[in-house]
Amino acid sequence: MFQIPRGTRDIPPDEMDKRRYVESIMRRVFVSYGYREVQTPTFEHLELFTAKSGDAVINEIYSFKDKSGRDLALRPELTAPVIRFYVDQMQMEPKPLKLFYFGSCFRYDRPQRGRYREFQQAGCELIGADTPEAHAELIALAYNTLKTTGLTDIRLYIGNLTILAYLFNKMGLTQEQRRYVTPLIDKSLFNDLKKYLEEIKVEEKMIDVFIDLLQTSNTDTIESYIKDDKEATRAMDHLTQVTGLLEESHLLKNYSIKLGIVRGLDYYQDIVFEIEAPRLGTEKQICGGGAYNLVKLFGGVDIPTSGFAIGFDRTLLALESEGYKFPAHTLDFYIIPVNEDMIPVSMRIASKLREEGFIVDVDLLRRGLSKALKHANSIKAKDALIIGAKEYKDKNVIIRNLETGEQKTIKIDDLTLLIKKKN
Amino acid sequence: MFQIPRGTRDIPPDEMDKRRYVESIMRRVFVSYGYREVQTPTFEHLELFTAKSGDAVINEIYSFKDKSGRDLALRPELTAPVIRFYVDQMQMEPKPLKLFYFGSCFRYDRPQRGRYREFQQAGCELIGADTPEAHAELIALAYNTLKTTGLTDIRLYIGNLTILAYLFNKMGLTQEQRRYVTPLIDKSLFNDLKKYLEEIKVEEKMIDVFIDLLQTSNTDTIESYIKDDKEATRAMDHLTQVTGLLEESHLLKNYSIKLGIVRGLDYYQDIVFEIEAPRLGTEKQICGGGAYNLVKLFGGVDIPTSGFAIGFDRTLLALESEGYKFPAHTLDFYIIPVNEDMIPVSMRIASKLREEGFIVDVDLLRRGLSKALKHANSIKAKDALIIGAKEYKDKNVIIRNLETGEQKTIKIDDLTLLIKKKN
Repeated sequence: MFQIPRGTRDIPPDEMDKRRYVESIMRRVFVSYGYREVQTPTFEHLELFTAKSGDAVINEIYSFKDKSGRDLALRPELTAPVIRFYVDQMQMEPKPLKLFYFGSCFRYDRPQRGRYREFQQAGCELIGADTPEAHAELIALAYNTLKTTGLTDIRLYIGNLTILAYLFNKMGLTQEQRRYVTPLIDKSLFNDLKKYLEEIKVEEKMIDVFIDLLQTSNTDTIESYIKDDKEATRAMDHLTQVTGLLEESHLLKNYSIKLGIVRGLDYYQDIVFEIEAPRLGTEKQICGGGAYNLVKLFGGVDIPTSGFAIGFDRTLLALESEGYKFPAHTLDFYIIPVNEDMIPVSMRIASKLREEGFIVDVDLLRRGLSKALKHANSIKAKDALIIGAKEYKDKNVIIRNLETGEQKTIKIDDLTLLIKKKN
Repeated sequence: MFQIPRGTRDIPPDEMDKRRYVESIMRRVFVSYGYREVQTPTFEHLELFTAKSGDAVINEIYSFKDKSGRDLALRPELTAPVIRFYVDQMQMEPKPLKLFYFGSCFRYDRPQRGRYREFQQAGCELIGADTPEAHAELIALAYNTLKTTGLTDIRLYIGNLTILAYLFNKMGLTQEQRRYVTPLIDKSLFNDLKKYLEEIKVEEKMIDVFIDLLQTSNTDTIESYIKDDKEATRAMDHLTQVTGLLEESHLLKNYSIKLGIVRGLDYYQDIVFEIEAPRLGTEKQICGGGAYNLVKLFGGVDIPTSGFAIGFDRTLLALESEGYKFPAHTLDFYIIPVNEDMIPVSMRIASKLREEGFIVDVDLLRRGLSKALKHANSIKAKDALIIGAKEYKDKNVIIRNLETGEQKTIKIDDLTLLIKKKN
């Protein structure tokens, strides 16, 4: 027996139906905002990802040499590939350019419950616009996409890395110290953060203010503290314009300001946001995004870019944790030829019904009637059509409701009519 | 600038729309036959593919070692992974089991025009039924799927490997000799084939008969030649039952018998078929399938299996070669706020229209009216909605047909009504 590779999984039909259902909702919402889909290869040159995120990511990436010795990598995310595609081929397109994607991503880490080495992401990239209305629309799109899938219990947090950087500067943190505190902020480990800042001799009062600011959602508090700095004030002004539009135009009031959103400090900049599904516990973050800076790094003409990625698998888990009722799998008819002579006409009826848009299966194993009916039940067919020799001679078939067991004889010619009426 | 990996490609929005359109048609047809979708990981243990196809395939596979030294492979096709999944988790499911898939596959060969190292396949596997009606339904499904996408110029060929093996036996070919002639038969290189068979001293008359049989579509000719052999006769009988059902039940008369279909002789067995789109020249084969034997090899309880794979990229190329008219990309409205004050209400109108199912874009760059209209034209919006201060004061907006240039002023409250009427 052959094993599936460690940390990966197969997706059976019932789950696949759910995934395609949610995917189609997300696609419809992305499209309704004027976004258009693109696709990039499953693997890229490794350097694309190290350029974006530094050499440290190599440890978490499925990287390999191809037969010509090239360093390739299964993509760990899709923003870098989409921006590479933009720089290669789409720089001359009218701006802003709105692109979305669905695709598998890969990470080489320790397999854990709910964390697989291959996982799906959906996301959008907005290239060429950084006005408040552009960012408000992007955030509303992410939020509404998740809402439209059917999720009810989600939280939106909006932060700003320019303000965070200003606070770091004020405390005089070195690059190395910033890198140390970033994961503590990300995980809201404020005690550890305080202890560390004390250790490196940040002024006690400033530590308290900093930790307060990381936790407050009150814009007045933030504004009053940063008012001396031009850049931070501009960033805050942008943020309040964005949230103003979210409330006024997108009727989105259920958000919190959170300066403690750090994301990938290296290439994200200015506005950032995250959406959480609290029921998922430690894996609660289902969407992350913001403004970022990759085009110039990838050799393109500098242009503002922003975007977000949705963890598709986690979205499914979140829906399930809310007890969401996915549409059930449908099989309209199961056709049973009662003997071999009835096979051709049974297949013919199946063909006709399929052409009319019905989902139809036929007994392919020449089973007896009771066994065939049992199978029809086990695969959850709604109705069985029994094609018997006697009935067929009179141009009749038997239709049996598999839920109630009720059955009646009808003319073959009426079949289409009856079915049309029924639906 | 970062390069895309050699032999791969990015798919831009217009082509992506076509692909999703064709994919949705194929999915609808697969589902209408009672098939259900599954998904397997992008990579597998290399041995899964060498077990199926021998060590020679390693040269054509993207294989690599992961960080723990495991030999992994980007899947070159999806039948082996789906059957592995079946053996691992689905052996207890009610039979027959009807599964379909869509996915990326990978081959490491010399990039050529129209041949990429990453390509898409769609396919179906039928597990647990090998009656003539089962195989007829499978072949009809493959053929109807391609027809339903809109292809008109396709050819279906049906062969049988049991009969081919009987002819090999009759000529006394060794395994090595069979392996040598197989590609010659596959490519219809009958002169080379004849020369080789003469070289290895096959009787002249038998060579002529063999080459005739490879090319005839006449079942009587075939039957009369194989009538002494029980196995070959049974195979031929099965074949004619299948084609009988194709004609009678599936109204599929446009096929040819072709004993020269070889496919992967190692694991295919008995009935095989191919569908070609002749306009594609050397890359004309767009579908291949048949009965095969993998379950036992993969450690499962032996059970009849058959299936087919459709080359998704080639299907797209074939549709384009026929001048197929794909549905055009739609953008219902482009909304233009004439000044900054009009932004919130413009975004609000956009939100409302999106909620009603329209595809809507808004100017995010605070452009002047004429520049914004130019952009709306360049992204092919149908109508522009111009939100002006004066009009808005009177609760009006201007709607402009971007094709005719015709424009009129309407009440905001009538917008929904007007639009509903219009559609």
